[in-house]
Amino acid sequence: MNLDSLFYPQAIAVIGASSREKTVGNDVVKNLVQQGYQGKIYPVNPKISELYSTRVYADVAQIEGNIDLVVVAIPAKFVADEIKKAAAKGAKAAIVISAGFKEMGNLELEKQLAAVCNELGVTLVGPNCLGAINAEHQMNASFAAVMPPVGDVAFFSQSGALCTAVLDYAKDLGIGFSKFLSIGNKAALSELDLIKYLHADPKTKVICMYAESLDNAPSLIQALRELNRGSNPKPVIVLKSGKTAAGAGAIASHTGSLSSGDSAYQALFAQAGMIRANSISELFDLAQVFSMNEIQSVKKVTIITNAGGPGVLTTDAVIESGLALADLTPETVVELRSFLAPSASTHNPVDVLGDAVGEIYEKTIDAIAKDPNTDAIIVLLTPQSMTEPEKTAQAVVKMRQTSNKPIVVSLMGKALVASGVEILRANKIATTAFPEPAAAALAAFAKFSNWSKEQNEEFLNYQDVDKARVTEIFAQAKANGQTSFPEAEAMEIMSAYRFPLLKSAVAKTAQEALVIMQEFNCKVAMKIVSPDILHKSDVGGVALNIDVNNVVTEFEAMMQRVSANKPDAKLEGVLLMEMAQKGIELILGVNKNSLGTMLMFGLGGIYVEIFKDVNFAFGPLTRTDVLKMISGLRSNKLLEGARGEAAADKETIIEAIGRLSQLVSDFPEIVELDINPLLATKDGAKVLDARIVIED
Amino acid sequence: MNLDSLFYPQAIAVIGASSREKTVGNDVVKNLVQQGYQGKIYPVNPKISELYSTRVYADVAQIEGNIDLVVVAIPAKFVADEIKKAAAKGAKAAIVISAGFKEMGNLELEKQLAAVCNELGVTLVGPNCLGAINAEHQMNASFAAVMPPVGDVAFFSQSGALCTAVLDYAKDLGIGFSKFLSIGNKAALSELDLIKYLHADPKTKVICMYAESLDNAPSLIQALRELNRGSNPKPVIVLKSGKTAAGAGAIASHTGSLSSGDSAYQALFAQAGMIRANSISELFDLAQVFSMNEIQSVKKVTIITNAGGPGVLTTDAVIESGLALADLTPETVVELRSFLAPSASTHNPVDVLGDAVGEIYEKTIDAIAKDPNTDAIIVLLTPQSMTEPEKTAQAVVKMRQTSNKPIVVSLMGKALVASGVEILRANKIATTAFPEPAAAALAAFAKFSNWSKEQNEEFLNYQDVDKARVTEIFAQAKANGQTSFPEAEAMEIMSAYRFPLLKSAVAKTAQEALVIMQEFNCKVAMKIVSPDILHKSDVGGVALNIDVNNVVTEFEAMMQRVSANKPDAKLEGVLLMEMAQKGIELILGVNKNSLGTMLMFGLGGIYVEIFKDVNFAFGPLTRTDVLKMISGLRSNKLLEGARGEAAADKETIIEAIGRLSQLVSDFPEIVELDINPLLATKDGAKVLDARIVIED
Repeated sequence: MNLDSLFYPQAIAVIGASSREKTVGNDVVKNLVQQGYQGKIYPVNPKISELYSTRVYADVAQIEGNIDLVVVAIPAKFVADEIKKAAAKGAKAAIVISAGFKEMGNLELEKQLAAVCNELGVTLVGPNCLGAINAEHQMNASFAAVMPPVGDVAFFSQSGALCTAVLDYAKDLGIGFSKFLSIGNKAALSELDLIKYLHADPKTKVICMYAESLDNAPSLIQALRELNRGSNPKPVIVLKSGKTAAGAGAIASHTGSLSSGDSAYQALFAQAGMIRANSISELFDLAQVFSMNEIQSVKKVTIITNAGGPGVLTTDAVIESGLALADLTPETVVELRSFLAPSASTHNPVDVLGDAVGEIYEKTIDAIAKDPNTDAIIVLLTPQSMTEPEKTAQAVVKMRQTSNKPIVVSLMGKALVASGVEILRANKIATTAFPEPAAAALAAFAKFSNWSKEQNEEFLNYQDVDKARVTEIFAQAKANGQTSFPEAEAMEIMSAYRFPLLKSAVAKTAQEALVIMQEFNCKVAMKIVSPDILHKSDVGGVALNIDVNNVVTEFEAMMQRVSANKPDAKLEGVLLMEMAQKGIELILGVNKNSLGTMLMFGLGGIYVEIFKDVNFAFGPLTRTDVLKMISGLRSNKLLEGARGEAAADKETIIEAIGRLSQLVSDFPEIVELDINPLLATKDGAKVLDARIVIED
Repeated sequence: MNLDSLFYPQAIAVIGASSREKTVGNDVVKNLVQQGYQGKIYPVNPKISELYSTRVYADVAQIEGNIDLVVVAIPAKFVADEIKKAAAKGAKAAIVISAGFKEMGNLELEKQLAAVCNELGVTLVGPNCLGAINAEHQMNASFAAVMPPVGDVAFFSQSGALCTAVLDYAKDLGIGFSKFLSIGNKAALSELDLIKYLHADPKTKVICMYAESLDNAPSLIQALRELNRGSNPKPVIVLKSGKTAAGAGAIASHTGSLSSGDSAYQALFAQAGMIRANSISELFDLAQVFSMNEIQSVKKVTIITNAGGPGVLTTDAVIESGLALADLTPETVVELRSFLAPSASTHNPVDVLGDAVGEIYEKTIDAIAKDPNTDAIIVLLTPQSMTEPEKTAQAVVKMRQTSNKPIVVSLMGKALVASGVEILRANKIATTAFPEPAAAALAAFAKFSNWSKEQNEEFLNYQDVDKARVTEIFAQAKANGQTSFPEAEAMEIMSAYRFPLLKSAVAKTAQEALVIMQEFNCKVAMKIVSPDILHKSDVGGVALNIDVNNVVTEFEAMMQRVSANKPDAKLEGVLLMEMAQKGIELILGVNKNSLGTMLMFGLGGIYVEIFKDVNFAFGPLTRTDVLKMISGLRSNKLLEGARGEAAADKETIIEAIGRLSQLVSDFPEIVELDINPLLATKDGAKVLDARIVIED
């Protein structure tokens, strides 16, 4: 993907240039010409000869020079041909603004367009998009009226119309952009391509995006773990819509019914270290906090305020978002006491009182910046008559020169604090209009910082699995048109992948049964094995709670009993199957969706649908992925032995999840799988039942 | 409480008037004089003679005329005396700005002040407050610099410093106030007093407050149900801080450990129909949506947008907040189709497309306003080049003339849509800067509307309770210094209040046992009754699963067995106690906290601490209160018979909660109570165990 031709073109052709105002073909030319683009502009339209004092060409073929980027705003069916002509003139990137493709049901036309571009080596943006803006390059190759200031935030969006609002909001908030792009139907250029380019872009510090759908979670996870767990972590902030869309039809499995589209995205974002913005407003808060602070560990926050109420509200927000308030050191408290009024609070939140002037703020900020227990700072200010918003803002700016501790400032109010906000913005200090969002943004900042410091690990892998056996089972099933594997067959697959199962064995004689029981060392259920007997209990062919002491007697008794009841039956022996202990019923499953193959782990039994205490992750999984799936459950307390019960054996739980990860990674044809229950006890987790569905 | 003297005084004395700028005593006089107050202003300070061209009096006693309101800003210890002097001049209300009372540990001084005011019939605001503003009366009797425009929103705050920020934010948002008050330490004037006054105030449509603590939940619930379930519901919106404050020390009971301060406030707000704002920003959104729309039922919302992305984001917000999207009628769809472009979406969200001009919005809004399936409307607009924010705003204003359907508009962006926002504000149309909060605010609006239409009911009351018996038990316990009632004693209290208990009776003879069992018609546990036997099972004094057929044999066998094992023991008979069936373990409890006596109901058993699936409500309870406690549980699905199980008998659950409500209402000395478990089966709920703690 040649994205330099897209963002740094030396010459741009605009096909479909129009003299009619307020049309796309007019706006694009106007924006290029009037907003300072320094390269060559070649508007194309056979019907006009000049537009905004720029020569208009009747046909692309007539353009004398080389073209780097072509912007197309003509009816859909003509687009591909014009791109071919532009490519002949050297175009390496095309922005197709034209609608009328997939979004109107014309998927085939869109595929053809993508194929043409691919063949010509042209990077295709769109179709059905708004265009691209690179303020650094003074290029507004879009029909959005606003050229944003240069900044270090990149933004791209699946919704073109959202872009104009984002530009207008951002302008008001003083947020500048490094690159700004509307990706439309994304027929060719994907989010991952853009993330890779922007990650390498020295002008970009934060990558923001609006997405309605993404593809291929495993590759995003893989790429972002490689990119962002190094020396150059660049936060990727996502505003994702469609959270509550109804699921795609009825789904038979538990795992399927518990997975929603949004649980898949939540899993993706957590595994890939992507930061989710829950609203447009939060997107801006996050962009600021990430772009204006250096990535570092944050756990404890100190709040500085001149008003008690906002201090308490912000404390609530800090705690709710998962951060903690710092305990200031005694030295810090002594220092604060040396200049604060006696009725000021030197406990966190530090209340400098309503009459605090800029100097008091400055000394306080200075003391807190030095406090070793404080990882990050939130400064609040309400406009009282003594308050000095500008001097207070300058105090923060000054602090930034000697400390890189993350800081977010909320100067509360509007007109009375505007001059202070301006100083903060000019000096790249993150601000929020209201105090509570400062805490939420800092929490996201802390989470990403922690994530970026994790080590990348190998995927869990077990050498003892019998892949050949499962390959054989699936091949045979496919040959027979079978896609569903109920208990017995599913358990054979489980067995081949060495999942922990209940012990079971067939004994042909009482003596064999005794030997087996000596090895098993547990109670078993005994079931007659005979091809001629369907209902085992009817003929006395089932006995429960057999142990090593009575197995011989029971074996013989059962043989006699069944023979008496069913003299014709051929008796092949008895199945000895471990009696399940009392334990915690868990559920482990798989759901393949548009993002990839997703594993689910959580509490099973009667509460599964009620509390939905399950976690999701895309395979293949690392040990840390698995540990997070377990520890993220509320029921984890039960596994750890709540209420005096023994803790469950966590290693065998991890192993079960790990083996499932390996199974679905080896066999991508698995679309649904439920292990229900996975029974956890102190002696280990056991698969009691399973069912599997593979693709047609 | 004479609040007219506070908000509509004809003459105000300011004690502690100061010539030094940026002091409280200066600001108050300046604000009164310069911001248009038309009544008499009497600044008092022995050291100066004039301030802002107004005569300053050396002493209150020298003021010639009558005083209605006195504002005091002098050291705490002098305040009471000055108020006495002002009262002698007719003052009926006092605003004490002075700090140095309870907040500094001087509770006694504050109590004295309150007592003085009470005795003199003076309404006391504060101490430690910012003052009062009544824009309608052109009175800024506070030290906040900003006089807000007149509006129909009343605001009062426990934090004075927050007020200045609120005024500044509100000015920017175009929100005006009917009354604005800082209540400080609220030594005398309570929230309930203010709510009652403001509810009767014709200038106030919405009551907003910031609270750190409230008192007496039952009286707030009672008052607001009476006030707001009539012909004049006035929403009370609360921004409550201290959500996450650590609980007050260790608490022994389950109910205590599951109740937090915030669960008590959540219960209060739900029962009293108070609307909680979760942030300062949401407070303003709610204030607008409530003040600019008429209370009415809302279930289904239609979104009108010119951009797909924001439409989907807002759909998410609508669904997440508990509302639904309207299905437009076929007639509406036909009408929309008649003027919208073919690629526009006539499904909700209605997408009028990016090039929609004001006229298209107007026709669309008109069609949706008439749509019978649409209860409320959200209009979104992103600024595209064809977009007409002003005409679109005017279209909404026009619609309001013929339809009173609730509507919220989000013109997205800032500078590009500012003129449209201005039109909306001028015409009292609710707007939000970002689209998602529009949905949350409408959901709160819908919730209050529904709540206000509920009927007030009698509290649950059972005539068959034996109040005298419990009175006697508690009296005797108090006499003995006993405050804790473990199982046996607690069960006696349960029995006196006719809670559903397991059947039990003592039989002296086998024949008696048979008669009892014929009546019981269930299996029982049989336990020997003897004052001489501590460990019943050791002597063969316990038998399980006895039924009517073997009760005689077992009675005789037990008597012989115990006699043989313990020849000296005096045997008084056997206790026959119903065997508990398998059922759902519930927990029912009581926790008395600073707001009142709160009942808890929810899922018991091993998941109680893990899922905390419990609901709270302040007693006494109505049947609807109880039904909400039950239906609000996630586990309610289990009670209704999930997974093919029989449903639990809900009437006996309701009765158990109702009897508990009556018990704690009759005996306010109960501070902690756990019924754990309350076992629910299809045959009825039974109290299996209980413990009670009363006050010292």
